[in-house]
Amino acid sequence: MESLNVGLVGMGNVGSGTLQILLENSEQLAQKLGIPVKVRAVCSRSIQQKSLPEAAADILRVTDWRDVVNDPDIHVVAELIGGTDVARQVIESALSQGKAVVTANKELMARDGLRLWQAASAASRPLAMEASAAGGIPIHSVLREGIAGDRIDAMAGILNGTCNFILTEMEKAGRGFHDVLAEAQQLGYAEADPSADVDGLDARSKLAILATIAFGCGVPVDDILVEGIRRVSDVDFAYAAQLRHTIRLLCVARMGTEGLSLSVRPTLLPKDAILANVSGSYNAIWVKGAYGQDTFYYGRGAGPLPTGVAVVSDILHAGRELLSGRENRVSPYSFKQLTQYRAAPPESFKQPYYLRFRVENRFGIIADLAAILRDHQIGIDAVGQLPITNWRDLPFVITVEPATEGEIRAAVETMSRLDYLLEPPLVMPMLVRF
Amino acid sequence: MESLNVGLVGMGNVGSGTLQILLENSEQLAQKLGIPVKVRAVCSRSIQQKSLPEAAADILRVTDWRDVVNDPDIHVVAELIGGTDVARQVIESALSQGKAVVTANKELMARDGLRLWQAASAASRPLAMEASAAGGIPIHSVLREGIAGDRIDAMAGILNGTCNFILTEMEKAGRGFHDVLAEAQQLGYAEADPSADVDGLDARSKLAILATIAFGCGVPVDDILVEGIRRVSDVDFAYAAQLRHTIRLLCVARMGTEGLSLSVRPTLLPKDAILANVSGSYNAIWVKGAYGQDTFYYGRGAGPLPTGVAVVSDILHAGRELLSGRENRVSPYSFKQLTQYRAAPPESFKQPYYLRFRVENRFGIIADLAAILRDHQIGIDAVGQLPITNWRDLPFVITVEPATEGEIRAAVETMSRLDYLLEPPLVMPMLVRF
Repeated sequence: MESLNVGLVGMGNVGSGTLQILLENSEQLAQKLGIPVKVRAVCSRSIQQKSLPEAAADILRVTDWRDVVNDPDIHVVAELIGGTDVARQVIESALSQGKAVVTANKELMARDGLRLWQAASAASRPLAMEASAAGGIPIHSVLREGIAGDRIDAMAGILNGTCNFILTEMEKAGRGFHDVLAEAQQLGYAEADPSADVDGLDARSKLAILATIAFGCGVPVDDILVEGIRRVSDVDFAYAAQLRHTIRLLCVARMGTEGLSLSVRPTLLPKDAILANVSGSYNAIWVKGAYGQDTFYYGRGAGPLPTGVAVVSDILHAGRELLSGRENRVSPYSFKQLTQYRAAPPESFKQPYYLRFRVENRFGIIADLAAILRDHQIGIDAVGQLPITNWRDLPFVITVEPATEGEIRAAVETMSRLDYLLEPPLVMPMLVRF
Repeated sequence: MESLNVGLVGMGNVGSGTLQILLENSEQLAQKLGIPVKVRAVCSRSIQQKSLPEAAADILRVTDWRDVVNDPDIHVVAELIGGTDVARQVIESALSQGKAVVTANKELMARDGLRLWQAASAASRPLAMEASAAGGIPIHSVLREGIAGDRIDAMAGILNGTCNFILTEMEKAGRGFHDVLAEAQQLGYAEADPSADVDGLDARSKLAILATIAFGCGVPVDDILVEGIRRVSDVDFAYAAQLRHTIRLLCVARMGTEGLSLSVRPTLLPKDAILANVSGSYNAIWVKGAYGQDTFYYGRGAGPLPTGVAVVSDILHAGRELLSGRENRVSPYSFKQLTQYRAAPPESFKQPYYLRFRVENRFGIIADLAAILRDHQIGIDAVGQLPITNWRDLPFVITVEPATEGEIRAAVETMSRLDYLLEPPLVMPMLVRF
């Protein structure tokens, strides 16, 4: 092999960033791999309308991905179109044509990654997906190589930049959710339909991928408890500040003796926790290993160039694998043999919780709620109320001592039957070191 | 190959941690590599006096490293004895016997790493050294794999846990250097002869290794400007706090158009910089890529188990390389072809500086110093003096606008001739985002 020849399928944000890096950084890439990395073809349905860099003059421009996948001179296909159906076809066809594949596709890899890895193994071709979760943070290679010797006990991450931008703005400026969301949409940080981001679905896909790598079992996406940030209000930031905490959409995976606990939900973090200082559109991941203890990784979670770095790094990785001529490929999941996924029962872990209520004002509310918590054997830590400005919509907060998710859910269900609650209590866990 | 057989040379802190992980975590390690990882032999001159874990009953115990290196059943030799002369012999002999080698030896790899990598290439055997710098932080694999697609512009790290512990304690408790050093020695955090740590030599070796990986040129250790922390006093923390900064021993590498600038020195960091929040014995590295922009890595820099994780991760890496049967090995320096090292001239980069003076009190001091700075075309940012408690030892501070190292050195040399200075000015750069 005299050069590693790459075909890029998809010329959106990530595709353009990848192309720019492959062209501009070609000298260093050749010094790293030992042979040049050449872009042979780029594919986009609207390739004729795209303005490509001047250095791309010699690159084939095609509109049908089959022309990339069937090109005998291409060694690595980068799937950068997103979505699931066509992307899956691109990856499967590329593998069956003997290409290595790299992909930035979180949704597809979260749902079908293990099947695609089987296809890659059968074809004896590398498959890599560093760009599929936490774009600019090289967490895949950290888990696969850097701390592969450790056994991961827990992982907590901020994996959705849009939510983190919204929550950071709400915190800084005391603004409400809808106000900041509208601004984020105007700035292009949030989609017109913001559901994938603000309802936690994007973060859930990323957590599914990272947990599969960290714990070596195939995580079913739908088994992850997910709550978005729509119900978090400026009032909650005011209460959190009183408790010296802030609020972030946190992805958490914890391995217990009985199985794996997975959640994506707004969470109170102590202000001095390293994760609490992750602001704006940055992502971060905190990993707790049985031996190496705490490590922490921080960087840009998205953007054409940071994600492009992940794609190009995977192209180098795939190139090294191809050059090795090995049959026995490195697994994109770090583990070559995955074990059976087991969900931890809801009574596995205890943590403190923050419960925020909105009620019609009347006597005896605290007494009712305290009695319900007592009946569920949940200890009260504090009851807090900021200066009251509106007697008809009276938010107040109870923080409780460590309890299991099952206990909290049962208590909240009982509370929700109280007719003076204007809405069900907002429940957020409070992060403690685990 | 039915199992990957490992020989550990050296049973000190790192050796014991490595052994513990290899024994306890063997199930996951086999799932990751695809075949079991077995410890076949451990070597220490005092192996008979060591109490090894029960699970180590079947492992050969030898006192001569040649018995490990010459054992035909061993595939990977881990050199964990430290020092340079015997360690070099161990590594060279192991490579010539066809073993893969992993090492935790920063001093040796900083000075002779490129030669040993040549020996490894000639023998077509993997050589890996994740544990040689920033123990528990997988920065080698991050640079070699995770962000290999990027081009690094700059890197700043806290790489010596002993210095960071001392500086953090000085900051928290307003204590003096010698006081905290004595405590650190008592606690076993600092050596009886603390020079390697507090004079910055340990950090310098680590920076040489990391800069070689990041920039792809062989960095001569002695070319790195190094200043230790002995002169940093409680007074400096008081002034730094006034400026909303703190002080850390910072390793910095910056690539400019004319070459590489490298330094290890106490540096003022803005309190809200992510590096300023690295406390106690933790290490951290901040990387600035041309494309991926900022990423940040944090974890334990030392300790038997965190460093053991790095060694074991390298053993897996070496195992994958051996299983691939490839001739064309992955370089421990990320680059397969290193380029010529060029030192940046001292006028390459400008940064603000903090100058702290101790003087005999008299009239006209500020006028003298201001005139010298003016003559060297250095702008004054601020002149500060804390409430005076001792008129004979009068510390005060001048912060100056961005200047080159060359300009500052020339001005300070002129200043040092003033007869009322009780000691040469203490010069510390102030970190700005670069």
